[in-house]
Amino acid sequence: MKKIINNPADVVSEMLSGMTKAYPQILTPIPKTAAVIRSDQASMVNKVGLVSGGGSGHEPAHAGFVGKGMLTGAVCGQIFTSPTPDQIYEVIKAADQGRGVFLVIKNYSGDVMNFEMAKDMAEMDGIKVDSVIVDDDIAVENSMYTQGRRGVAGTILVHKVLGAAAQAGTSLPEISQLAQEILPNIKTVAVALSAATNPETGKPGFELKNDEIEYGVGIHSEPGYRREKIKSSQALVTELVSKIDQEIHFDSQKQYAVLVNGLGATPLMEQYIFSNDLINNLAQKQIRPVWMKVGNYMTSIDMAGISLTVFELQAKQWLEYLNEPVETIGW
Amino acid sequence: MKKIINNPADVVSEMLSGMTKAYPQILTPIPKTAAVIRSDQASMVNKVGLVSGGGSGHEPAHAGFVGKGMLTGAVCGQIFTSPTPDQIYEVIKAADQGRGVFLVIKNYSGDVMNFEMAKDMAEMDGIKVDSVIVDDDIAVENSMYTQGRRGVAGTILVHKVLGAAAQAGTSLPEISQLAQEILPNIKTVAVALSAATNPETGKPGFELKNDEIEYGVGIHSEPGYRREKIKSSQALVTELVSKIDQEIHFDSQKQYAVLVNGLGATPLMEQYIFSNDLINNLAQKQIRPVWMKVGNYMTSIDMAGISLTVFELQAKQWLEYLNEPVETIGW
Repeated sequence: MKKIINNPADVVSEMLSGMTKAYPQILTPIPKTAAVIRSDQASMVNKVGLVSGGGSGHEPAHAGFVGKGMLTGAVCGQIFTSPTPDQIYEVIKAADQGRGVFLVIKNYSGDVMNFEMAKDMAEMDGIKVDSVIVDDDIAVENSMYTQGRRGVAGTILVHKVLGAAAQAGTSLPEISQLAQEILPNIKTVAVALSAATNPETGKPGFELKNDEIEYGVGIHSEPGYRREKIKSSQALVTELVSKIDQEIHFDSQKQYAVLVNGLGATPLMEQYIFSNDLINNLAQKQIRPVWMKVGNYMTSIDMAGISLTVFELQAKQWLEYLNEPVETIGW
Repeated sequence: MKKIINNPADVVSEMLSGMTKAYPQILTPIPKTAAVIRSDQASMVNKVGLVSGGGSGHEPAHAGFVGKGMLTGAVCGQIFTSPTPDQIYEVIKAADQGRGVFLVIKNYSGDVMNFEMAKDMAEMDGIKVDSVIVDDDIAVENSMYTQGRRGVAGTILVHKVLGAAAQAGTSLPEISQLAQEILPNIKTVAVALSAATNPETGKPGFELKNDEIEYGVGIHSEPGYRREKIKSSQALVTELVSKIDQEIHFDSQKQYAVLVNGLGATPLMEQYIFSNDLINNLAQKQIRPVWMKVGNYMTSIDMAGISLTVFELQAKQWLEYLNEPVETIGW
């Protein structure tokens, strides 16, 4: 393991310290937690708080999406480990401005359990809390840490849409309804070229041969659905688009937003080449995405690979929410 | 070599196609070139054009910094290869709105020669052209492709400051003077944990042992100044800060902007840990950077490593220019 770290046990606290000290105008640490709140939180008076989080190792997710127009706060667990209920509770308290708090939870058993416990704690304090469980990864049903489907890069689009809605003053029940409306329209699938190496263990999460790839790997190195020899970018796009098509049923009369997400160690060069093949592939279906973003948003430490997220835009406002400007580190 | 590509010979054209098709609202291809111009170029009437470019493999540089408030246009050579004079000339023509064009050139012999030739061609057409040669890398004097010092990540800060000035309507002579003023105050040094693998050759640019790092490596795998065993992030920071200090002579009475730049395959987690150590190190010198940015801005394909750029802010306006909002892919 060759990494720019100090003591592996301090990775998360030092990382978070670096983020908040480098960007004090955007992020403020919540004392005695591994959590952050928007530095302009005072401007959110009478608005719903939007909170997310999860294990670390997915940077810039989720703290990198805290800021004006996106998340109100985020809480970071240890690497690939759910944050504890008491820490989640502290963020909910910090994010509440009297209009309630909405939680965006990725579908991992630990996250779901701990966020639900924190929600109960906050409700006992009289804070209104509602939540959505994001399960956008279509690769597999059930997984190492998940019942049902996993939550991956599509979560970032949930942050963006709900964040714009919260910023606009939308009420908690309306945000909850919006979340339920967009969720079934966001689907993701990934391909990995190499595994992530967790600095705490020093070992890669799985092994791939020099010429091997795996489709459908999760962001905590959960197994995917097929291994095979590395293929051209065009062939990878064909595989991932066909997998998404089975769920989303591409239709040239409909509008789509697309997120091409690097998993940590894949250079932008490859992400843009993949994007080019993707756009060409969709063009053959008479589809031209109306919104697109390419880069590292939901990573898995130093995994090489790409995920593809497609979001069917059933309402004009969803696209407007995607396009609203934000002030965050990572968007 | 395990990469998401098609034919290695097509890497640059496909990458550029992906960038421009994914972000048509920001980038427009210049026909028959590997170059791009701002999609809102029409709004730059009566303003100076700002043009940069160089070999590919440094994404998001330079095309990712084209857009409102930064570059007017950028031209992409083949990987680690200077763009040709005729292509640079085409961008200059496209960027000119009657007030002239300013070129930001990184100090590599091929770039310097070809940009100067393009400048001559444009001047014969009556276009006023001026330029600056960026040589911010303090690691070594003279190198594989450079007389003097190399131009690296500090170039992005030059783009930002001059881009804000150009957007504000600053004249060509004033932009030229500003460039000459900021240049001696921008210094960079890097550490590499692994080499970049050029997809055209399929081989890494150099070899490092599993526990070895190299200080001062260039962004085209040019040799640095020392190899040694991997150290803690704190120790890497100490080395790079001390190297910068020899040039910039840190002074707690002065103001500094800092860019922590990932070289392509280094996850944000490590960049934030490095940033935390950097901020702590500078705090011991009673220095708190007034501006900071962390991420992948001037990469070397899939090289693992980090560069540190320090910019001594001798004028309040330089900081204002850094803070001006932009509309680009990469900033």
